[in-house]
Amino acid sequence: MNPAINRKIILASRPVGEPADSDFRLVEDVIPQPGPDQVLLRTLYLSLDPYMRGRLSAAKSYAEPVALGGVIVGGTISRVVESPVAGLVPGDLVLGYAGWQDYAVAAAAGLQVIDPTLAPVTTALGVLGMPGMTAYCGLLNIGKPQRGETVVVAAASGAVGSVVGQIARLKGCRVVGIAGGARKCAFVVDELGFDACIDHQRPDFAVALASACPRGIDVYFENVGGAVFDAVLPLLNMFARVPVCGLIASYNATAEDATGPDRTRAVMRAILTHRLTFRGFIVSDYAAQRQEFLETVGAWVRDGSIRYREDIVEGLEQAPAAFRGLLRGANFGKLLVRVSAA
Amino acid sequence: MNPAINRKIILASRPVGEPADSDFRLVEDVIPQPGPDQVLLRTLYLSLDPYMRGRLSAAKSYAEPVALGGVIVGGTISRVVESPVAGLVPGDLVLGYAGWQDYAVAAAAGLQVIDPTLAPVTTALGVLGMPGMTAYCGLLNIGKPQRGETVVVAAASGAVGSVVGQIARLKGCRVVGIAGGARKCAFVVDELGFDACIDHQRPDFAVALASACPRGIDVYFENVGGAVFDAVLPLLNMFARVPVCGLIASYNATAEDATGPDRTRAVMRAILTHRLTFRGFIVSDYAAQRQEFLETVGAWVRDGSIRYREDIVEGLEQAPAAFRGLLRGANFGKLLVRVSAA
Repeated sequence: MNPAINRKIILASRPVGEPADSDFRLVEDVIPQPGPDQVLLRTLYLSLDPYMRGRLSAAKSYAEPVALGGVIVGGTISRVVESPVAGLVPGDLVLGYAGWQDYAVAAAAGLQVIDPTLAPVTTALGVLGMPGMTAYCGLLNIGKPQRGETVVVAAASGAVGSVVGQIARLKGCRVVGIAGGARKCAFVVDELGFDACIDHQRPDFAVALASACPRGIDVYFENVGGAVFDAVLPLLNMFARVPVCGLIASYNATAEDATGPDRTRAVMRAILTHRLTFRGFIVSDYAAQRQEFLETVGAWVRDGSIRYREDIVEGLEQAPAAFRGLLRGANFGKLLVRVSAA
Repeated sequence: MNPAINRKIILASRPVGEPADSDFRLVEDVIPQPGPDQVLLRTLYLSLDPYMRGRLSAAKSYAEPVALGGVIVGGTISRVVESPVAGLVPGDLVLGYAGWQDYAVAAAAGLQVIDPTLAPVTTALGVLGMPGMTAYCGLLNIGKPQRGETVVVAAASGAVGSVVGQIARLKGCRVVGIAGGARKCAFVVDELGFDACIDHQRPDFAVALASACPRGIDVYFENVGGAVFDAVLPLLNMFARVPVCGLIASYNATAEDATGPDRTRAVMRAILTHRLTFRGFIVSDYAAQRQEFLETVGAWVRDGSIRYREDIVEGLEQAPAAFRGLLRGANFGKLLVRVSAA
């Protein structure tokens, strides 16, 4: 690669349904020059996360969509290349939001310096980053797991679900994961220590989930939606809590995919008669808990109470395919793209 | 009426869809004799409330269903006829759960004496009873209305909705009611003091509701479901709260009435992206707040801050028809059946 070139992956067209390779385009540009209070960054790792699908659509959800022709957004770990800013020097590793490109300029105020002696740097995009904090804040603030309760988490081998389940175990709950395929399920039980994990690809999935939850479900951490939610709903106990964190099963869905019958009434009736709480959130709602999260989960990672798994793809040009795989569950653990080794 | 006869209305068959007159049967029986610790009661008023539809179905919701052949349940105001129990004497007025019959025996422990000098006795079944407390507890504990926010309440002229809206006004909110027909809407605005009230029978209902909520909706108190909910959902603001109290639009629905497309995904997506809270409840969840409710709302009723309207039907034999009317919104205010004048 020519070091004077900045490769960028831009949004070529808005995906309808599953993103196609043609919705992305790799273009080359000059390396940008930092202005005052800005630094030049070399991207080391991209974080690929399900929420990014929403950014590719025109509809506003949490944030503005990526513009057509704009660089795909996403969290990054970068190395500082040039810095006119006090407190940031070349070689520093920073957490930022540089997106899918080799180089970026960024305001120094938006960057967080990573100390690579505290934990592997990639954890800043995973277990000790946005996904881990999403798990921590959503589970504890909304799920409110109590000792002896049953907690079910979808996408249990993923970046968020794996942390949800392990925290729930540490809180004394029975924890049942849901994941796609026997290999992920074995990992969730054997490596992460969940009490059980049910493969949602099994034809008898709903029956198996019910068997794994003999006392019903008190907390369901929703990452998925769709058929997984359908199987969970009848198992929810009185006063169950449902933190709604993601709905990956429908991120590629179009309006035409909604077939009948309408189950809204059944959901609302369950909320009413079982006094359920459904609450949506995103991690920034709990920004004030960041230090508490880092101290608590950081200690659990260091002492081995919480484990994590990363799925690292090599090369910026692989980001679109890796992202498409993420949306259908092809990754196994926190999905990262290594853009540069150093 | 022969005073030695106890007329009872029993469940003759379980209604499928809208209850039919033939699902109820008026039978005559002897007047029961109280055992130890029991009193004999003469029913003065029955309370007719939407939740009672659930008791007529075989499916367990909050409570056990009425047995086939059993007396239809419901809250009552009665006069004590015979009492071997200290502290209860003939002539006392009591709040109980005697159901649809002229006489009943009841355990003294399950009765609350009503002081008719504090408020009209019928308020014990309405604004100062279960419906009023439902409104108070659901709105304040789950809705958490803040000054300047917009609160929307369905079934706004009804026993619960009318109290929800008036409390929200007292809390400094903009309050928009939804009711069926121009007459009810005029009452809600002119007599109850809501800022606006939209007739859900209007063909342009959804547009009119949006116009009445120029800053969106922060609290939606759900009594209805169905098309009313559909119009509310797109107007909910970030962090809006939805106490789910009732779903009267679907109480008579059968599984075959669920037509497509399935809107569950749209609801869950709204919960996620707008960080909504949906929470079901029933009044007994807040039993500890009963005294606070009685003092607070009692004072508001006495000083005229909260008004109420009653719709009183004459005669036990009219209860089935009145109840059927309630389920389609034919009543106008808190629905009661006067069984005996004294």
